[in-house]
Amino acid sequence: MSTIPARRRRATIHDVAVEAGVSRGTVSRVVNDEPYVSEQARIAIEAAIEKVGYVPNNAARSLVMQRSQAVGFIVHEPHSLFLEDPNIGGILLGANTALSSADYQMVCLIIDSDRDNDRVARYLSGGFVDGVIIVSARQNDPITRIVEKLALPSVFVGHPPDLRQLPFVGIDNRSSARAITERLIGTGRKRIGMIAAALDRDSGADRLAGFRDALGPRFDPALVEDVPLYAFSAGVDGMRRLLERAPDLDGVFAASDAVAAGALEALREAGRSVPGDVGVVGFDDSAWALRCQPPLSTVHQPAAGLGEAAAESVLAQLRGEEPDLGGILLDTPIVWRDSA
Amino acid sequence: MSTIPARRRRATIHDVAVEAGVSRGTVSRVVNDEPYVSEQARIAIEAAIEKVGYVPNNAARSLVMQRSQAVGFIVHEPHSLFLEDPNIGGILLGANTALSSADYQMVCLIIDSDRDNDRVARYLSGGFVDGVIIVSARQNDPITRIVEKLALPSVFVGHPPDLRQLPFVGIDNRSSARAITERLIGTGRKRIGMIAAALDRDSGADRLAGFRDALGPRFDPALVEDVPLYAFSAGVDGMRRLLERAPDLDGVFAASDAVAAGALEALREAGRSVPGDVGVVGFDDSAWALRCQPPLSTVHQPAAGLGEAAAESVLAQLRGEEPDLGGILLDTPIVWRDSA
Repeated sequence: MSTIPARRRRATIHDVAVEAGVSRGTVSRVVNDEPYVSEQARIAIEAAIEKVGYVPNNAARSLVMQRSQAVGFIVHEPHSLFLEDPNIGGILLGANTALSSADYQMVCLIIDSDRDNDRVARYLSGGFVDGVIIVSARQNDPITRIVEKLALPSVFVGHPPDLRQLPFVGIDNRSSARAITERLIGTGRKRIGMIAAALDRDSGADRLAGFRDALGPRFDPALVEDVPLYAFSAGVDGMRRLLERAPDLDGVFAASDAVAAGALEALREAGRSVPGDVGVVGFDDSAWALRCQPPLSTVHQPAAGLGEAAAESVLAQLRGEEPDLGGILLDTPIVWRDSA
Repeated sequence: MSTIPARRRRATIHDVAVEAGVSRGTVSRVVNDEPYVSEQARIAIEAAIEKVGYVPNNAARSLVMQRSQAVGFIVHEPHSLFLEDPNIGGILLGANTALSSADYQMVCLIIDSDRDNDRVARYLSGGFVDGVIIVSARQNDPITRIVEKLALPSVFVGHPPDLRQLPFVGIDNRSSARAITERLIGTGRKRIGMIAAALDRDSGADRLAGFRDALGPRFDPALVEDVPLYAFSAGVDGMRRLLERAPDLDGVFAASDAVAAGALEALREAGRSVPGDVGVVGFDDSAWALRCQPPLSTVHQPAAGLGEAAAESVLAQLRGEEPDLGGILLDTPIVWRDSA
């Protein structure tokens, strides 16, 4: 179509030189702000740059310096994270804000298949990023291996089980779960159950452990219902099963706000009032918590703070500082609303 | 700390040469798979590469070819998109799948401030990506301008008002809104209102236009409530105001499923049954639609399909094909459930 400008080829320094009627060396001196160029030539070259649409190739220049001025943000399990996890958006935006302030470009890379895994590993090897933030890594992950091999400044959000000598930022799921369960016990509830989720992840297993810590000798495994995902529908199913087994239940700790929202739905369906008959608490303080009727008492996850802390850790490593291998744990205040 | 391996410096070809006791040229020939290297030297070099952890710098190599084998995915308005829009995850994953099949790395870039705008524009200029997918661009956007200037293969998801000669993929919001409103009219409702959202975006304005098309002469502006965002809380507020003004209302078209979920909440609060007293329809067919009680009748947005179509358009341009400037519109089937 005639309306399309020459889209196929990027303008080069050669095009500028031809347009301005000067040598490529002169163009190069103007582009790199070097001296010894006549004012006349400079004006002609600037006009030619504008006319042919030339833009200097910064990538090539920064690669010579072994610096891309970019930091990767790697998302594993994108289906569950992007479509179900309320924290991922906050983590992304927090990291972007911190990197942006330091003039780094955040590039988010998604791993959704083995093919992605291999290609992202090649990308990281290729010098396109100076450091990397990794969300939701699994055991024996090829990305973790390549990051170690390249000695790339890196940080994990969350704490995969086999994390060796790599820094991480996260929250203390176990003590947070313990704290909210203790608060629920403090309201006078006697038969408290839990809808535990994602026990194959450290976050899920730690939240169950914290619940158990809080109850101590009163912990009753029959009051724990185990669901696969941190999801609304899992909360509905889990709560229904828990009510069948323990109709006298008067308190529930749901492993996430989405699970708690599902639990509220199942309690409503069963004709139980909240918090009158049953007190319900969640985990995350996501948008779900305020949408629920009644609004949820829950544990606040500092999603943006996690992203910022992760970015700050990578930036510190890029400045040559030693990473804190003990991990950085952020505070998780309890937000008490009306559901318990 | 003594437990940290040498993380500070990336191994170079020089380190390999020293370790193997050969020249850098010989290492280079092995790395680039060139002939005239003895089997003995090759084995020594491969062992040295493994030992020092050397990885060839593909970025530098691909820049010489003016190809990065990466495609940018630019997200504007990340707060509303990542934290409220149910489609963004699906679009991202669809694009990633299609690019991955073609062995392209998708790099997602977030624009959350003017500073991000400038830096992303520089990044695009820098040769780090071969093409770009742009979600939710605004008028007179610096990114749009730089993409045009660079003649970078590009595609928009959605259709910003001033999109000139750049290809896009999207849905026909107007005719989709008309179709679902007609279906709602077909259930026998007489007083149908709309909670219109985001009228400053083409999607919001087009959905209102489609609603108006369907009602024709029966359109009553007093039955349209205007809310700023496609959000649950906006739906609650909009529905409350609509009920105050028109208590005899018997049908509602909410501009998105999240808005519809909020409307259901306000209707429940007001003691109206759905679909008994009021029929409610939404737009998106997101996770909200199935979570609602009753499940929503809505317009299906093909989020993953939009991402795939956008990626295919960029890939076709990278193969040298002419983009379809008329735009690609995907089908939006109506999914009829229980809310109307």
